[in-house]
Amino acid sequence: MRQVGSVLWPKLRVLQVYGANTGVGKTIFSSILCRAFQKHFPKVHYLKPVSTGPLEEADDSSGSGGETVVVFTQTLTRYDQTHDMNIKAKCLYQFSDPVSPHIAARSSKESVTDDSIRAVLHDELSSYATSEDGIAIVETAGGVMSPAPSGISQADLYRPFRLPVLLVGDHQLGGISTTISAWESLHVRGYDVQSVALFSESRYDNHSYLKDYFAERDVLAFSVPPPLERHSNDAEDARAMQEYYEEAASSSSVAAFSSQLLQNHDKRMADLQSMSTEAVEAIWHPFMQHSERSKDTITAIDSAYGDYFATHTTQQALATSQNPTTSLIKPAFDASASWWTQGLGHGNPRLALTAAHAAGRYGHVMFASAVHEPALRLAQTLLTNMGNPRLAKVFYTDNGSAGMEVAVKMGIRAAAARNGWSADDEIVILGLKGSYHGDTMGTMDCSEPSIYNKKEPWYTGRGHWLDFPQVKMRKGRWIVESLDELKTSLEGEKTFDSLDDIFDFQKRTDDYAAYKQHCDATLAELVEKGTKFGALVMEPILLGAGGMMFADPLFQRCLVDCVRHHSSLATETQPQHGGVSLDWTGMPVICDEIFTGLYRLGRFSASSFLGVDADIVANAKLLTGGVLPLCTTTASQAVFDAFVSEDKTDALLHGHSYTAHPVGCSVANESLRSMMKMEREGVWDGFKGHWSSSGESLEASSPDHQAGDVWSMWSEAFVKAVSHRSQVDSVFALGSVLAITLKDPDGKSYASKAAYEMRDKLLAGAPGEEWVIHSRVLGNVWYAMAAMTTTRDTIESLEEKIFAALE
Amino acid sequence: MRQVGSVLWPKLRVLQVYGANTGVGKTIFSSILCRAFQKHFPKVHYLKPVSTGPLEEADDSSGSGGETVVVFTQTLTRYDQTHDMNIKAKCLYQFSDPVSPHIAARSSKESVTDDSIRAVLHDELSSYATSEDGIAIVETAGGVMSPAPSGISQADLYRPFRLPVLLVGDHQLGGISTTISAWESLHVRGYDVQSVALFSESRYDNHSYLKDYFAERDVLAFSVPPPLERHSNDAEDARAMQEYYEEAASSSSVAAFSSQLLQNHDKRMADLQSMSTEAVEAIWHPFMQHSERSKDTITAIDSAYGDYFATHTTQQALATSQNPTTSLIKPAFDASASWWTQGLGHGNPRLALTAAHAAGRYGHVMFASAVHEPALRLAQTLLTNMGNPRLAKVFYTDNGSAGMEVAVKMGIRAAAARNGWSADDEIVILGLKGSYHGDTMGTMDCSEPSIYNKKEPWYTGRGHWLDFPQVKMRKGRWIVESLDELKTSLEGEKTFDSLDDIFDFQKRTDDYAAYKQHCDATLAELVEKGTKFGALVMEPILLGAGGMMFADPLFQRCLVDCVRHHSSLATETQPQHGGVSLDWTGMPVICDEIFTGLYRLGRFSASSFLGVDADIVANAKLLTGGVLPLCTTTASQAVFDAFVSEDKTDALLHGHSYTAHPVGCSVANESLRSMMKMEREGVWDGFKGHWSSSGESLEASSPDHQAGDVWSMWSEAFVKAVSHRSQVDSVFALGSVLAITLKDPDGKSYASKAAYEMRDKLLAGAPGEEWVIHSRVLGNVWYAMAAMTTTRDTIESLEEKIFAALE
Repeated sequence: MRQVGSVLWPKLRVLQVYGANTGVGKTIFSSILCRAFQKHFPKVHYLKPVSTGPLEEADDSSGSGGETVVVFTQTLTRYDQTHDMNIKAKCLYQFSDPVSPHIAARSSKESVTDDSIRAVLHDELSSYATSEDGIAIVETAGGVMSPAPSGISQADLYRPFRLPVLLVGDHQLGGISTTISAWESLHVRGYDVQSVALFSESRYDNHSYLKDYFAERDVLAFSVPPPLERHSNDAEDARAMQEYYEEAASSSSVAAFSSQLLQNHDKRMADLQSMSTEAVEAIWHPFMQHSERSKDTITAIDSAYGDYFATHTTQQALATSQNPTTSLIKPAFDASASWWTQGLGHGNPRLALTAAHAAGRYGHVMFASAVHEPALRLAQTLLTNMGNPRLAKVFYTDNGSAGMEVAVKMGIRAAAARNGWSADDEIVILGLKGSYHGDTMGTMDCSEPSIYNKKEPWYTGRGHWLDFPQVKMRKGRWIVESLDELKTSLEGEKTFDSLDDIFDFQKRTDDYAAYKQHCDATLAELVEKGTKFGALVMEPILLGAGGMMFADPLFQRCLVDCVRHHSSLATETQPQHGGVSLDWTGMPVICDEIFTGLYRLGRFSASSFLGVDADIVANAKLLTGGVLPLCTTTASQAVFDAFVSEDKTDALLHGHSYTAHPVGCSVANESLRSMMKMEREGVWDGFKGHWSSSGESLEASSPDHQAGDVWSMWSEAFVKAVSHRSQVDSVFALGSVLAITLKDPDGKSYASKAAYEMRDKLLAGAPGEEWVIHSRVLGNVWYAMAAMTTTRDTIESLEEKIFAALE
Repeated sequence: MRQVGSVLWPKLRVLQVYGANTGVGKTIFSSILCRAFQKHFPKVHYLKPVSTGPLEEADDSSGSGGETVVVFTQTLTRYDQTHDMNIKAKCLYQFSDPVSPHIAARSSKESVTDDSIRAVLHDELSSYATSEDGIAIVETAGGVMSPAPSGISQADLYRPFRLPVLLVGDHQLGGISTTISAWESLHVRGYDVQSVALFSESRYDNHSYLKDYFAERDVLAFSVPPPLERHSNDAEDARAMQEYYEEAASSSSVAAFSSQLLQNHDKRMADLQSMSTEAVEAIWHPFMQHSERSKDTITAIDSAYGDYFATHTTQQALATSQNPTTSLIKPAFDASASWWTQGLGHGNPRLALTAAHAAGRYGHVMFASAVHEPALRLAQTLLTNMGNPRLAKVFYTDNGSAGMEVAVKMGIRAAAARNGWSADDEIVILGLKGSYHGDTMGTMDCSEPSIYNKKEPWYTGRGHWLDFPQVKMRKGRWIVESLDELKTSLEGEKTFDSLDDIFDFQKRTDDYAAYKQHCDATLAELVEKGTKFGALVMEPILLGAGGMMFADPLFQRCLVDCVRHHSSLATETQPQHGGVSLDWTGMPVICDEIFTGLYRLGRFSASSFLGVDADIVANAKLLTGGVLPLCTTTASQAVFDAFVSEDKTDALLHGHSYTAHPVGCSVANESLRSMMKMEREGVWDGFKGHWSSSGESLEASSPDHQAGDVWSMWSEAFVKAVSHRSQVDSVFALGSVLAITLKDPDGKSYASKAAYEMRDKLLAGAPGEEWVIHSRVLGNVWYAMAAMTTTRDTIESLEEKIFAALE
């Protein structure tokens, strides 16, 4: 699949000309600028990617505002016979119907997709990038939000390139409003609008107002007089027009703009190339041993769009310095989904507008004893859609770590209250080995001692952690690796025909019995020793940061059953609600779905894979679709009630200033709405077809499980093929996640560098490759995940690159 | 000062009509809607707040697009002689010059400010709110962003009301673009745009495209045919026009819109009134004992603008039910600055656009081994402007609590490394009593045992906390209350002529000597006992959540000096950088400036009041101007270097998914830029004039101190007056913060309810009061703080209300 993105060539300046409206003079300004730049550059390119109207009669009354190459060329040739013409004009798509491109495209035989326009434009611009200095002016059609052939707006069509923009403002009555709004539409789409240009017009004086307005926003606005009215095509008229263009092109305003444009180009290059060095100087990076840091190990991210970063690296700088036709910026697939947060594509204009709407409606409003619509609706959406009748109350924090601190406080305080434990009692959590719940002290204490925490003076592991069987594909077969402790039916490893079968608990009664015996015995022993368990804390299905491990869902299900029904843990419970007890027994069950929830594994709720109704669930990351931090901790009524008394100090005295910030809640509402809509509309059905269970009946073989529910965006065939590669130990895929465990010669896991080579190879890419893969590793595990909007096409291209890298 | 805000009367529907451009038919649509609503309501109001052009010849060529009351009334009267006219039309401001209002206003004698237009509009609409059902249509001038008389845009002028909006779209060539952009400009300003209406026009077919486009955004778009061209004013023409209006008004599109408008009005009321009940159902509130929660104790915040919330309470619902001319929504000054975060006004369009720009340019991009412009620039801005040469590296987290966890990890790990302590050693922090650094476990452990943490099973106080002398104004005199332990020169309390004198350390050498003796002795004793101090952790000047205490800055300064130079703490330090050692001695000094920094107290850096260069500084809250969470922890090179080795596990293995999220960093850059600009331009000089030191020379009497540097937005005269109120124990003000300690009959502090009455009284307001005060309390301390953009006028009105409430 072709993937083109942001470009920056050292010798080729590119300027995109947008219009605040149709008929504001984009072509005239383009023409003036071409003339002005003739003085600077041996070659000036004028490019109109899409034009409508018949070539021979294009004029201002055509559907596209008559801004066609013909008009442009006429302008140049008719009024400029004296000049040495070093201006090349070109149109990429020409529709004869003089209407808006989206209408013209309908009646045209040519099929023009956004991708094809982008690819052709990219190639055309690439062909201009030489070792000679040059400039290209790319003129859009109509206004900023005017539809392109596919119906998408101009601003959205060209957004992947994120070219520097000149916005031609509207000099007419009402033009102040249309100019500012057009600028805002470009601004919220992440464009760098360097300048606003418009005709000076004494009656409305828009240009005076707009110069001041934009100066305050660090945007240079300038004006030139409007062109003369044409009376005829005679020689005198032509001379007058030539004079007009000459004067405009050599005016001080245009000179100031030109000089700024050239400076900005140089500054952008310089900034991009110095960013890594400056970062080394000013930044303390997360999770990094800085002895390994240098400017060469830092990726500068210029912007991002859809699945891709626009990246600049030292390697890229070198490639460009050796060959100026190489862009300094390269698209890189964001394979860590920006640390597992990305869900709906980078630079998503709907999420950007949603964020701005909330910021415009509220800013932040404090949440103590208060409520606002975005937070209320989000809480209700979560409670309704988790499919867990226990859950009743939503608590807000700012990130997963804080939200898990709250979850643990909730759990252990509820357990302490019911068991009559005091704050002096040593209360611990029950967890799984390799769990990871965050970096603040309380959540660090929920993980067993490891290299993440062993040098932290205040770390105190407060728990008991069980080993668990893992699901893997190895040499083409799905297996569940057993535990050393399990000397029963599951000894060694067990093979399954499909991933779906592993989730079909009704067919696995023997395994369940073995697990139950093991968990019961372990619990009994611990409780007998006097261990006070405040909560079971667990990441359902996937243990993420601990090393991307796929837990046997049956084991996790069984563990919850044991915890809830183990005789030694029995405590008095609350009365039943409507026949079904929604109260916790044994200990509160906390599901950390920060990584796994909200469709990362293909479902709204990750614990639904287990058929488990948790007492407390934490969500974050995908919650806001990959825009900004927010976390929810959702609890049962019984847990909530444990904090209610007449004494203020019994309350959960926890809260952050930005608790339930409306911007985050609004973006979360929009993200969830989008993903739920995608699920409803079957957007992911194409992926499901690539999994072996898809051919089967969709009837449930057990109440919690439907065949076809377990699927991944990565095809099963690909996973199988990968599992046969010689350097691969095992692999799995679920939802958008793919994890490949590489064989490590030294037997190390987190400390291993086996996956680094793969990561570096994918980021470097093959010579001339159009896009590369930016990924993160966890020890010897190389993993990748997609956004929920990533297409099958893109996944296929990724599969090819990944497969090739495993050679 | 008049303060008008969002309004919602049960019987009066109000619709604001905006135009995507001039000349798109706002007046015609208003007219059609007035006719349509005649069927529903006994009274229909048409209101044009500002109109330009001479009354007798207003037409479409006038500067305001001719949308004047005259045209409107002509339209109604000329073509509608048959109707029983129950439509009342009115214009509030009429400028005779037929140009844009901002130009017309210049040449007019009448001075028209935004505030006056808002007040007059508010009063006019209020007069329509009766016990009878009615509707008012408020037509704006020009396009959405067209300038009002003051030069501000239409959308910004009317934003405080946040009326439901009908946007009249543009049916002309290019109108798709201008309509969408206009909608976006309204959307990012927090408006509820309920509908888009435009003329159907077969050539460009904008209406078909826009109907689909807006349907996807849950906005109803509809169209009616354009009016006929007028040929003359003869009877036939008139009859044709009458027919046109009749048909349009009774069309199914308009009927659908009308019915939606009425439903939305009812739904908005119902939602607003049920929000508190629903919140009780679905939300777990921060810092609340929920036995005290009911729908009556929850404030519903409909929106916010500038300094004010638009609030709805049970009390307001009652008032409205008794009298339908009372709005269901009332402006309430946000006196907690939304939990101390608010700095640049709620609903700030620049911050909203900045957030959207970053979301559009990046979304989130992960920060591990990466860098992006907003994070880099923010780090550099902080390093440059803190005025602290020690600071060298910036670490990002999502909120103050997480950022302080990082600060403490940095500090104690650096201390452990230098002192050769192992992770098993018990390392503690040195702090002040009543400190508060956050709610995650690691920061809770930095506070001494208190009601905040005593019931938390995992809480372990890890520190030693010193008592400290406090600054207060009592009975008109500035005092420093001494400590019981200090049996020296500061015994009892000491009086100062001005707050400024308290900060003039050079004049307080005796006090310093007494403090030094005390601190040195305490430290010596603790170190002798074997206490291993990992860091001094301190909120400079103001201890916030612990009870809003004003620490004697000289004591804090002295404590730092002692810690850094105490012989028993001496450790080997790094070599000096350029003659001045930037390395820490004794123990790293951590300044928690999350609340006090970034201008909350009037200065960029709060520790600058102490003349102290901290080794680690945490910033949050005001950092993002009150929009969304972000925190920075800035550290010295020496602290950073303690984590650098060849061993990955020596690194600070901390990081959150949304670390350095570009949206937060961008908003922070814009917030800091704005506040630094305000400081540079002397925006706060007016406030400084109300402080006693202002008349003095600005020459420094000591290197760290300039007279006039210590000031508050609250006037000293007011603070003095408050201090004399009988129920007031003491009071202080600094920067934007005011804190009043009320006498508590039972001698309780945090558990006291003395300030609750004051809070409730201010929120209820006097009968008929236009706006009230929403505040939070800390035990017996009632406090208020302003945004950095709050005007002296507003502060004066607040001072009056607060003073009155203390009667």
